[in-house]
Amino acid sequence: MKCRKCGAAAAINMRHHRLALCGNHFLEWVPEQTQRAIERYRMFAPTDRVLVAVSGGKDSLGLWDVLVRLGYSAEGVYIGLVIDGGVGYSNQSLVRCRAFAQAHDLTLYTVDVPAELGAGIPEAARLTHRGQQKPCSVCGLAKRHIMNRVALEGAFDVLATGHNLDDEVAVLFGNTLAWATGYLARQGPALEARPGFARKVKPFCRLQERETAAYALLRRIDYVYDECPHAEGSTNLVHKDLLNRLEAERPGAKLSFYLSFLRARESGTLALPEAAQPNSELHACTTCGQPTSAPGECTYCRTKRRVSEKKQAASS
Amino acid sequence: MKCRKCGAAAAINMRHHRLALCGNHFLEWVPEQTQRAIERYRMFAPTDRVLVAVSGGKDSLGLWDVLVRLGYSAEGVYIGLVIDGGVGYSNQSLVRCRAFAQAHDLTLYTVDVPAELGAGIPEAARLTHRGQQKPCSVCGLAKRHIMNRVALEGAFDVLATGHNLDDEVAVLFGNTLAWATGYLARQGPALEARPGFARKVKPFCRLQERETAAYALLRRIDYVYDECPHAEGSTNLVHKDLLNRLEAERPGAKLSFYLSFLRARESGTLALPEAAQPNSELHACTTCGQPTSAPGECTYCRTKRRVSEKKQAASS
Repeated sequence: MKCRKCGAAAAINMRHHRLALCGNHFLEWVPEQTQRAIERYRMFAPTDRVLVAVSGGKDSLGLWDVLVRLGYSAEGVYIGLVIDGGVGYSNQSLVRCRAFAQAHDLTLYTVDVPAELGAGIPEAARLTHRGQQKPCSVCGLAKRHIMNRVALEGAFDVLATGHNLDDEVAVLFGNTLAWATGYLARQGPALEARPGFARKVKPFCRLQERETAAYALLRRIDYVYDECPHAEGSTNLVHKDLLNRLEAERPGAKLSFYLSFLRARESGTLALPEAAQPNSELHACTTCGQPTSAPGECTYCRTKRRVSEKKQAASS
Repeated sequence: MKCRKCGAAAAINMRHHRLALCGNHFLEWVPEQTQRAIERYRMFAPTDRVLVAVSGGKDSLGLWDVLVRLGYSAEGVYIGLVIDGGVGYSNQSLVRCRAFAQAHDLTLYTVDVPAELGAGIPEAARLTHRGQQKPCSVCGLAKRHIMNRVALEGAFDVLATGHNLDDEVAVLFGNTLAWATGYLARQGPALEARPGFARKVKPFCRLQERETAAYALLRRIDYVYDECPHAEGSTNLVHKDLLNRLEAERPGAKLSFYLSFLRARESGTLALPEAAQPNSELHACTTCGQPTSAPGECTYCRTKRRVSEKKQAASS
């Protein structure tokens, strides 16, 4: 297999694009594709200040790398979740993010979840009985809250996450299997800013996971290979596995599923009326001021308070 | 595993319903479920005359059996497609349908496709260059046309087909993967009559394939086991295989996918605006009079004419 651009030995063959490329041309192709997505979905402008949420994995560090190569002003935020007491998975993640920022002379904000929430993610989940099987719901809640806060406090124009096509398609697939029309109404590569909510974008939304992995490898980015230990057995991974089988049978199936969904919604042949009133019932949290759907305290602040109460009760 | 109703040894365990039943209670349960679907989707009334399209397989013969047991007036129509020269698959199908009708003293109409169309299905596909890989598109075209004609000429109130949940879900899945919103707008267990189109219903739409198979076996219905030889490798079978894997991981996933789709569309949280004008452009075919989307001859009549021209050219 040869590179379509220069005829050298190909480093990657992308069957769904009928495109094989050598390492050098692939490293040009990824930023081009990313730039196309940024423009196509009007994610941000060249002068905007971008905050990239980095986890230490291939997607988020790869995205940061691409945005910097494309000339964007991109700073990073790392959220220290303390998944396993901060010894293995979490600690490795922070080390990788710091090393990347230092090597490229970039600003990295770090947020320590135990200092913010009163406990690391698994402990907070245990204390609040959220996630009796898995701490993933508390984790998502904390990440969304903190990322949004850092983006707003830093007056960033946009918050970028490293979600790739496989991530997006798995979520779309799950929401479609359940016909969760409210979620379907909101899913997309760019979520507009609303009062109290930063603009959110996913510039890697059209790149497959194997492409972001190949990019990180070829760029010699030192990233954490392991999945979060809590991901195992999740519905999301079951869906990813099915979608991988489908893609193997029909190359391009994932991209086509995702893009035809976005097109149908854009053209109005797929109408999700719940999209019309996403703002209807937002209130400012009485504690932190971030928007919340019910009057009173937001779920994050309530969780934080419950963690604190449980810890006090345990120590007294 | 024991029957939930009588405690005898269970013949079937339906994990998605958390229900195990013995043979006798399962043979009661299937007609009950069918009757519920008939009422829930307002398919037809007790006094309506039903035409059942039978292929000789477990689903259509099982459906005919259930409708008769439920007391409906149900006659059958068999379409002789002459798939393999009428020797193996096709011939076996007709034999099974005739035997079933005779044993139950029911009326069976038979339509001979070569006499109607001028050639059996594979030959017609070859002659008209429709289906260069597969004759399935000509087959679907001929079946739809002929079933509709027989239903209208016989003044039946409704045409019933044996599509089961697996069939419905595979089609829904394919249409969803492509976000084919026009097809999504029309898919469902009951398709209203329109001028020139008989009402169409699928009373087995909530029964899994293994349930219709178990029903036919336990009722000792002599049916054709083989799939159509042309089905192999079809997209539909790829999708069925994926959906079976999903169902194995999450029992109930298929039924939930199908029912939540119908509910979302019914409630309007999923709106498919193309559904609003399905009639907008129907014309009477200048040859047969059946409705067609473009003025002039319908696709079936054009295919028939092309078959005849090609045969004349070949013999002269």
